[in-house]
Amino acid sequence: MAHVNRQIHLVSRPTGEASLDNFRLVEQPLGEPRDGQVLVRHHYLSLDPYMRGRMNDAKSYAQPQPLDQVMQGGTVGVVATSRHPGYAEGDSVVCFGGWQECSILDPSVPGTLRKVDTTHVPLSAYLGPVGMPGVTAWYGLLKICQPRAGQTIVVSAASGAVGSVVGQLAKARGCRAVGVAGGADKCGYVTRELGFDACVDYKAHPDPKAFHAALKDATPDGVDGCFENVGGMVLDATLARMNAFGRIALCGMISGYDGEPIPMLQPALLLQSRLTIEGFIVSEHMEVWPEALKELGTLVATGKLKYRESIADGLAAAPQAFLGLLKGRNFGKQLVKLV
Amino acid sequence: MAHVNRQIHLVSRPTGEASLDNFRLVEQPLGEPRDGQVLVRHHYLSLDPYMRGRMNDAKSYAQPQPLDQVMQGGTVGVVATSRHPGYAEGDSVVCFGGWQECSILDPSVPGTLRKVDTTHVPLSAYLGPVGMPGVTAWYGLLKICQPRAGQTIVVSAASGAVGSVVGQLAKARGCRAVGVAGGADKCGYVTRELGFDACVDYKAHPDPKAFHAALKDATPDGVDGCFENVGGMVLDATLARMNAFGRIALCGMISGYDGEPIPMLQPALLLQSRLTIEGFIVSEHMEVWPEALKELGTLVATGKLKYRESIADGLAAAPQAFLGLLKGRNFGKQLVKLV
Repeated sequence: MAHVNRQIHLVSRPTGEASLDNFRLVEQPLGEPRDGQVLVRHHYLSLDPYMRGRMNDAKSYAQPQPLDQVMQGGTVGVVATSRHPGYAEGDSVVCFGGWQECSILDPSVPGTLRKVDTTHVPLSAYLGPVGMPGVTAWYGLLKICQPRAGQTIVVSAASGAVGSVVGQLAKARGCRAVGVAGGADKCGYVTRELGFDACVDYKAHPDPKAFHAALKDATPDGVDGCFENVGGMVLDATLARMNAFGRIALCGMISGYDGEPIPMLQPALLLQSRLTIEGFIVSEHMEVWPEALKELGTLVATGKLKYRESIADGLAAAPQAFLGLLKGRNFGKQLVKLV
Repeated sequence: MAHVNRQIHLVSRPTGEASLDNFRLVEQPLGEPRDGQVLVRHHYLSLDPYMRGRMNDAKSYAQPQPLDQVMQGGTVGVVATSRHPGYAEGDSVVCFGGWQECSILDPSVPGTLRKVDTTHVPLSAYLGPVGMPGVTAWYGLLKICQPRAGQTIVVSAASGAVGSVVGQLAKARGCRAVGVAGGADKCGYVTRELGFDACVDYKAHPDPKAFHAALKDATPDGVDGCFENVGGMVLDATLARMNAFGRIALCGMISGYDGEPIPMLQPALLLQSRLTIEGFIVSEHMEVWPEALKELGTLVATGKLKYRESIADGLAAAPQAFLGLLKGRNFGKQLVKLV
């Protein structure tokens, strides 16, 4: 184990688009765990769209990411040194360790880390379908959209860590699952590999009218539930296709994370179609995590829930991979592999 | 009883603002009720913002108002001739009789008419606080906003038939009630007569920044529930003041009923503050009417629920009064008095 811990710090806040200048690779001395602590060597970092919001110094659900400190985020790794009786060297754990090679954590603080079983579920999956993105999909679909068999569910960013799970869970419950994704490769993956009924390529239909027409073709019976990760044109078109009493789980609006807010063009549709739209973040619904993780873990272990990862190599690649995620350049869950 | 029944027909659909040209006064022979029917002489017509939406030939919750037929709408009146055993001449009734002097109705069709008691509640109140507008307020506030004591509730069109009830019900449940209305007269009425804690005059703050500042002053602890009748600038400013997990009952968007759709400028706030927004129309929630009407009727009969009416005189005045309602020229529930 090296005595240096490399970290990525946020050193400035973006004005408009985030850029590499906002980040800096920093070397810090690696301390020793005190009594009751463990030292975790991170194997994978999770890169997630929500991190962009935290880079701003603005009102949001989370405190802003502090400047000149390690970028915060989910990680999986292996215990390298334990001075806590509940953990042993070699234990696989999920923790919120941030963009750094190692972290020293105190397991007595609730939610800091938990051991995971990698017999049937790969370690990285605990940052994807059997982790925060999977539970996000599970909660938004089942608790907000409340799908019933025969209904149509639309999910944007459909090939991503969250969207891919939404559609597969919807299919498993007898729904028509319609994705929105960027490019023929992603759309083909969504329908052929993940089993969605249709996937609309927003890059092939950059004009709102053309996109609306394509979404209409893919949703001949209208839309009953929408799991929204993108916002903007995609949300506007979906709202116009919603059936009466449709339900929208608002999980992300990545199209507006850089720069000016993107309006919703026809909010009167919420009234005309008596829609419910609910914004949520999954960390505020910890009560569902055990049930959700149990279902998701079983589905992954038995090969019934498919997923894909985009893996950047090495800590220094994290900022570029993160900027690519914001542009939709990832294909599946975006990770950074450290070990 | 005259043998002529005067009616207002919709004869053309508005392009942009509705105008007097869209309506025509028509005289029709007054028929006789057949066996099982009753003839009702209308005393008051109800004019309501939702009627503007039905003048368009567009997708909405209700079928469009047919051209060259009587404008549909709620009415109260007195049975003039009964050929139904459950009704007698002189009975006071609420019915959906439309913009005409009389209607011939079949009580065996559910929802067509019901007898009301005018001992303690004036007949016209059954078109206001003890009728559709009152139940709308009751449902949206209690079932969607779900206010708790100590919370802040904002309601737009606060001096109107719906808004006035929302604020008084919120006060009765221990909330801070903040109205939005147009002009010093209406705002003074809302605070001094109706007992709201504050009322923001949108006409005195036509600029969105100024309006937002005034709303902020009136809601020092933020906003927990919003009952929205107006949309546009008022909704945008309220969204920006919403506390986490706030709830918005979307009842109307009168600011956009004429002309182009008005966008919601910052839908990302729905996510950032984890808000729920729900569009509704009260006629789809008939199960709450008995409970709501019982509470509202008692409050009006005991003088605890105050309301105000704008009364236009005579059938021919209905179109002009309706156009005034869309411009906010009414003060309280807009009625047309026929008898």
